[in-house]
Amino acid sequence: MNKNDIRRAGPDDAGLVREMLGELADHQDEGEFVLVTVDHWRELLGRDDVIVLLAERAGEGMGYVSALRRPYLWTGGEVLALDDLYVRKAFRDSGVGRELMIELARYAQPDNLTITWGMRPENDQAQRFYTRLGARLRPKVVASWAPTSYADLLPPP
Amino acid sequence: MNKNDIRRAGPDDAGLVREMLGELADHQDEGEFVLVTVDHWRELLGRDDVIVLLAERAGEGMGYVSALRRPYLWTGGEVLALDDLYVRKAFRDSGVGRELMIELARYAQPDNLTITWGMRPENDQAQRFYTRLGARLRPKVVASWAPTSYADLLPPP
Repeated sequence: MNKNDIRRAGPDDAGLVREMLGELADHQDEGEFVLVTVDHWRELLGRDDVIVLLAERAGEGMGYVSALRRPYLWTGGEVLALDDLYVRKAFRDSGVGRELMIELARYAQPDNLTITWGMRPENDQAQRFYTRLGARLRPKVVASWAPTSYADLLPPP
Repeated sequence: MNKNDIRRAGPDDAGLVREMLGELADHQDEGEFVLVTVDHWRELLGRDDVIVLLAERAGEGMGYVSALRRPYLWTGGEVLALDDLYVRKAFRDSGVGRELMIELARYAQPDNLTITWGMRPENDQAQRFYTRLGARLRPKVVASWAPTSYADLLPPP
């Protein structure tokens, strides 16, 4: 079995991260919502609070996990908000997703960060995967209030 | 009817914000999870990405809304992650919660920020309130992976 390398992405990895984010979004039929450019990603990958871990085999990108450190207002500490976990088709079912999650935990451990994220209720596979890792899953209702929706309540700008 | 003032909290408001956060958590039987100190809050209220709006009448705190600006990795822009909305008992059902939300929207509008947050599925009252404001609500499954849970997958530190 080949050895997978996992490392933190830096600004030079912006192109690869943007490419895989596009693949993930297309896979979910949400490609139209990805507006971020490679230049944006170069900036994001230079930030301390943006964590992207890349899985590679022989220099080829296999997948990634992205997360944001953010303050947790109830404790004065921080939490790690996982954004996306993605593994390219050719590498699925080979344990890469699990390896990425474990690396994210290794990143989070020294600062005692809880890792949080959301998923679609119909995504049973993801729920089984994360439950096996020991995550606690709860149903929630999530609200999104877009500028076009709240504009009705404000005087014209 | 008295006039309610709404303004952005600064470091000097740390004591009041901490007090109301404690009330909110107690109200939800979650007081034990509030570990943040007034000093922590003084720091948090000095950050550009931590937004707390305070509602006051005649100098007395009526309630608050807290939110965090965070990067949105799909667009390269930002979103405003609402954390808590709280109105003190004596001032409930007087429209203060709605006023706080509208002020938060006014803060978000110039940067075209979408506002997002979560709530418990059984909280019908909150869901009606936010739907009336024009927010879009969706069921989701939320995962939380605590240091004590992921520690099992890592070598001993």
